[in-house]
Amino acid sequence: MTAAAATAFDARRAIRNLRELADRTGGPAGSRRLCWTPEWAEARALLREELSTLPVEVEQDEAGNLWAYLKGQSAETVVVGSHLDSVPAGGWLDGALGVMGGLEVLRSLAAAPTPPKRSFALVDWADEEGARFSRSLFGSGAVVGTLDIEILRGLEDRNGEALPDVVARHGVSLDALDGCRTRLEHVVAYLELHIEQGPVLEHEGLGIGVVTGTVGIERERLVFSGQAAHAGTMPMGMRRDSLRAMSRFALELAEIGKRHNGVTTVGSVSCWPGVVTAVPGTTTCTMDMRHIDADALAAMFAEAKAAAQAAADAEDCTVELEHIFRIPPMIFDTTLVDSVRRAVEAVEGHRFELPSGALHDASEMARVVPTAMVFTSSIAGLSHTKEEDTPDEHLAMGITAFHQAVMEAVNRQ
Amino acid sequence: MTAAAATAFDARRAIRNLRELADRTGGPAGSRRLCWTPEWAEARALLREELSTLPVEVEQDEAGNLWAYLKGQSAETVVVGSHLDSVPAGGWLDGALGVMGGLEVLRSLAAAPTPPKRSFALVDWADEEGARFSRSLFGSGAVVGTLDIEILRGLEDRNGEALPDVVARHGVSLDALDGCRTRLEHVVAYLELHIEQGPVLEHEGLGIGVVTGTVGIERERLVFSGQAAHAGTMPMGMRRDSLRAMSRFALELAEIGKRHNGVTTVGSVSCWPGVVTAVPGTTTCTMDMRHIDADALAAMFAEAKAAAQAAADAEDCTVELEHIFRIPPMIFDTTLVDSVRRAVEAVEGHRFELPSGALHDASEMARVVPTAMVFTSSIAGLSHTKEEDTPDEHLAMGITAFHQAVMEAVNRQ
Repeated sequence: MTAAAATAFDARRAIRNLRELADRTGGPAGSRRLCWTPEWAEARALLREELSTLPVEVEQDEAGNLWAYLKGQSAETVVVGSHLDSVPAGGWLDGALGVMGGLEVLRSLAAAPTPPKRSFALVDWADEEGARFSRSLFGSGAVVGTLDIEILRGLEDRNGEALPDVVARHGVSLDALDGCRTRLEHVVAYLELHIEQGPVLEHEGLGIGVVTGTVGIERERLVFSGQAAHAGTMPMGMRRDSLRAMSRFALELAEIGKRHNGVTTVGSVSCWPGVVTAVPGTTTCTMDMRHIDADALAAMFAEAKAAAQAAADAEDCTVELEHIFRIPPMIFDTTLVDSVRRAVEAVEGHRFELPSGALHDASEMARVVPTAMVFTSSIAGLSHTKEEDTPDEHLAMGITAFHQAVMEAVNRQ
Repeated sequence: MTAAAATAFDARRAIRNLRELADRTGGPAGSRRLCWTPEWAEARALLREELSTLPVEVEQDEAGNLWAYLKGQSAETVVVGSHLDSVPAGGWLDGALGVMGGLEVLRSLAAAPTPPKRSFALVDWADEEGARFSRSLFGSGAVVGTLDIEILRGLEDRNGEALPDVVARHGVSLDALDGCRTRLEHVVAYLELHIEQGPVLEHEGLGIGVVTGTVGIERERLVFSGQAAHAGTMPMGMRRDSLRAMSRFALELAEIGKRHNGVTTVGSVSCWPGVVTAVPGTTTCTMDMRHIDADALAAMFAEAKAAAQAAADAEDCTVELEHIFRIPPMIFDTTLVDSVRRAVEAVEGHRFELPSGALHDASEMARVVPTAMVFTSSIAGLSHTKEEDTPDEHLAMGITAFHQAVMEAVNRQ
């Protein structure tokens, strides 16, 4: 035990750790902690250096998650964590804030004269971003048991490298993956600190906020089909223009999102034949819709399907929907969220709450464990880019509120 | 002189020539007479075989156009023609109908007991489609003098072959191109027979029609710019969604086309970042608008620019327009169109007229020479596809009416 390192809580020290991480694994183009790469391993090495000064057991599990355990008076364990991996050319805070904030909580617990009532664990989840193999929430999904291992076996990155080969270099075998599920055995709470990655807190003039849950998501691909035709010789009244049908849908989808206070997005569009001189015979687009309330999400989805059909009908086209992805809303634990409310009120004097529009490892953990999150503001709502940033005072408030909420959970009986 | 070949007018013989051409240069996937290829040369060889039986002078000019001259009583020359080249996997009639119909007129003139009052020429224009180097109306543009030779020097096909190298294999040198302009010296009229490539005549229940001119065209690329954002974390009310701006524009553009009785098309759209989880920061689309009346086209273009700005404003985006292509309407010659009217009335008992929504070699010729066209119907309006077809009786009516209109022009003094 290195008493020098295990000292009283200091939010500024966590921010210094974040800057050191950015110096060692980032550059002018942003952070480069893509999972299963040397830069990611370098980020982990920094974390291990810090952990080596603390009275903790450090273990990598079968999915590549890194755990640091501090024994408490009972076996019941409170877990905090997030992810050191980033998208390519990403921001310095996405994921890293939660790991370094959790590390600071761990340091303060280790410095206390007596062990906490409950045991404590810090986890650095592997491959939250899924930026290389298009499967996000890898490590937390493995622990919770939501990964489809047969699908994982078939995944390749852009260079044609297979996921099983790449993760094997980091000590992960898909055959043994399920072994990591024992990590949840004594877990009674999961808390995560994260940047908002959106503009809501900044817009409200706040530095931190209470997260009520993570939204449910419906993603579909829509294929509008009409009749390709010559742009000069086909009269307007005889056209079956699939792009016009898609345009009607895109505008109506936005109204559906506004009406239900959710979010709806057409993010990608392509036309066939896709030339300046032809009426598009086929137009394909994607739809993403999110809401924190399952009933509202279901209503939005039903209205979107009706809107797609109405848009197709209006242009004498047809439309087919293809399922891409679906996840239900995850409402966080009442008791833990109350702890977060008290902490946010103590630190910034309000209880402003918002759902998370993005998925987090907390979305996986909330399936099986009482879960809560704290958000800090994001400047201009930017994330997944080198411009991602948060004022230092907001980072400090977030780490401080997170510390308080975790303390409540750790000392609960 | 081969009296056996030069015989009285017979529209069915032209149709037989068309079928022979389809047999020799087409297949299950459609016609393959892409210009500057062996299949195109094979089509030309068939035409030369037919011409070799007639008392005509056959010459290829500096642009690769093939001319067959029949001397008349004066040097004044009536030219008829179209193009044997096709798009890849194209139809059997697009262009070929005009060449084989013109060949039949030439045969009948050659069979007459006395030479026609005016001289006569059949021309097979080179590379009307521009399907390989994206420059249509190559041969007719060269004769009229509208090609920009410096631009031609830089064009490459998909395999990286340069246009100057490819055309050189067919006896064409860009340095000598302008020499072909002497071909217009004695030309007093140009007539062309073509399939409509649209559904109007079929919709009217007609086999043939009088073409009043070719439409003017405005083509622009529009770039709508907003702010890329996370599809989950950016609230609807704070978005600057470039795809929504484009959608508003596409729908309003259609209304502009309908309102002015012209045609307007958004044929191609792409989004950036273009992923399901991001609000599109940039959406690029193309616009094509056509009208036979220059004032109406100008009004449509002004309204489209205003609509683009209004669509951008409505979504807190900006829009930039980039010029792609512009050609003014070409109104055909009153006297020649009157001949076509009489011919169509004689053959099918009406004078139904329509503008051509597509460009033809006649669009180039009409800049400098009195010009007219005859259309035959197109089944379902389809063209540039193997499904392109026209009932035989409509082909025969078209060839017959064309013959009559050309006879009027040839015998005029």
